[in-house]
Amino acid sequence: MVRYKAVIAYDGTNYSGFQTQENGHTVQAELEQTLKKLNSSQRVLIHASGRTDAGVHAWGQVIHFDLPQERELEKLRHALDTQTPADIAVRSVEKVADDFHARYDAVEKTYHYRLDISRPRVPFKRYYAAFYPYTGVLDVELMRRSMADLVGTHDFTAFCAAGSSVENRVRTIVEAGLTLDEDNQELLFVFRGTGFLYKMVRILVGTLMKVGQGRLPVDTIEKALETGDKKFVGPTAHPEGLYLMEVKYDKNNRAEG
Amino acid sequence: MVRYKAVIAYDGTNYSGFQTQENGHTVQAELEQTLKKLNSSQRVLIHASGRTDAGVHAWGQVIHFDLPQERELEKLRHALDTQTPADIAVRSVEKVADDFHARYDAVEKTYHYRLDISRPRVPFKRYYAAFYPYTGVLDVELMRRSMADLVGTHDFTAFCAAGSSVENRVRTIVEAGLTLDEDNQELLFVFRGTGFLYKMVRILVGTLMKVGQGRLPVDTIEKALETGDKKFVGPTAHPEGLYLMEVKYDKNNRAEG
Repeated sequence: MVRYKAVIAYDGTNYSGFQTQENGHTVQAELEQTLKKLNSSQRVLIHASGRTDAGVHAWGQVIHFDLPQERELEKLRHALDTQTPADIAVRSVEKVADDFHARYDAVEKTYHYRLDISRPRVPFKRYYAAFYPYTGVLDVELMRRSMADLVGTHDFTAFCAAGSSVENRVRTIVEAGLTLDEDNQELLFVFRGTGFLYKMVRILVGTLMKVGQGRLPVDTIEKALETGDKKFVGPTAHPEGLYLMEVKYDKNNRAEG
Repeated sequence: MVRYKAVIAYDGTNYSGFQTQENGHTVQAELEQTLKKLNSSQRVLIHASGRTDAGVHAWGQVIHFDLPQERELEKLRHALDTQTPADIAVRSVEKVADDFHARYDAVEKTYHYRLDISRPRVPFKRYYAAFYPYTGVLDVELMRRSMADLVGTHDFTAFCAAGSSVENRVRTIVEAGLTLDEDNQELLFVFRGTGFLYKMVRILVGTLMKVGQGRLPVDTIEKALETGDKKFVGPTAHPEGLYLMEVKYDKNNRAEG
């Protein structure tokens, strides 16, 4: 048995999400079907760093899987890349230790969130950035001040979607940045941390949009973290703006979430 | 009767092209259907600066149309923008002289062509840039030298697709540029000129790709222009890389094509 780690990019538009589920067209099912073809029709199970929801994209999703034999890496990558649909790309494949785990060994994840603030909406971005539909200016400086409260180790219970069964909701955010592009057409949120709860990034973005509009106070994130109370947070932002950009690993440093 | 000029952006992916045709889902039909709703169910005919083919995009397509009454411009733009499908955006609407014509008054057009040279293919770009599928390096300098021969006034017969009924094939190219993005992931071709023949930009790009691969000589464009012979040109590049970016007008300077 040889264990492989692969870095995957996908356009989530036409998927019900990453993880296999009944009645859903998923990225996992496409990858497993292709691996099965490359493995003498024997089933191959893949494990990802985490699931992504319907419509959410990935540039740097990481998976692991086992094959009975050693393969030539670039040949395996090329076969996987070209035999999966055009909305999935296999960026790299490497051999890893037999106990490497794409989910449990992840120590840091980076998410991007693209918010289209152009007028009118740019048609080419409609599946690749969320559209900010309201009139009135978003105060980027106010949003940046509010985001600064995220950096550090906190209990993120207030930012966890209902239905999550995760018990430990303490995570460390290393970076929370917000940039406006040259043409004032798009906002890019960057979140980097040890792990993220279910829908946490989208709830953070939904909250920050309300702060930028002046509809939630600048200290609402601080209060949500202190109290764990969902009354301080905004709605969940749309999935099409979200990208899982990178997952980092360090065998000596296992992380949760 | 009041004549209006509008600047339109559209994602051409799901259309059979701009111009209305039998059995085709077209941008023109969507715009005319929306205008009819805004005009007490009376038909409104639109005229564009030119057609675009299936899969080709536009950021700055220009149309004109007539309505029986004077309208508030921003209200009309907003109604058109929001009542057309999400893959069509109406960027601006203005009142123009009764004899303004989107096609016959155009004096300059700018096209962009995006070529994705990343490995593997970036899934998010698959409908918004053409993918260069071959291995081996594209020699950008060689392509630039070859493109330089385009600038000026020439008979572009060799670069006109079969089936075009246009008789005068003399056009003036003002700018022919090629840039590589920071990450060496994408080539951007820029063509600006008095007019372009049917499929001319895509045949130019197909020819330049062959030059960059070393499969056509650097003087092949010069020879194609001199002789009008199609044997010097390459294949027609795919539609998804092409964008009609801008159309310029000058009432005192009518142009053909």
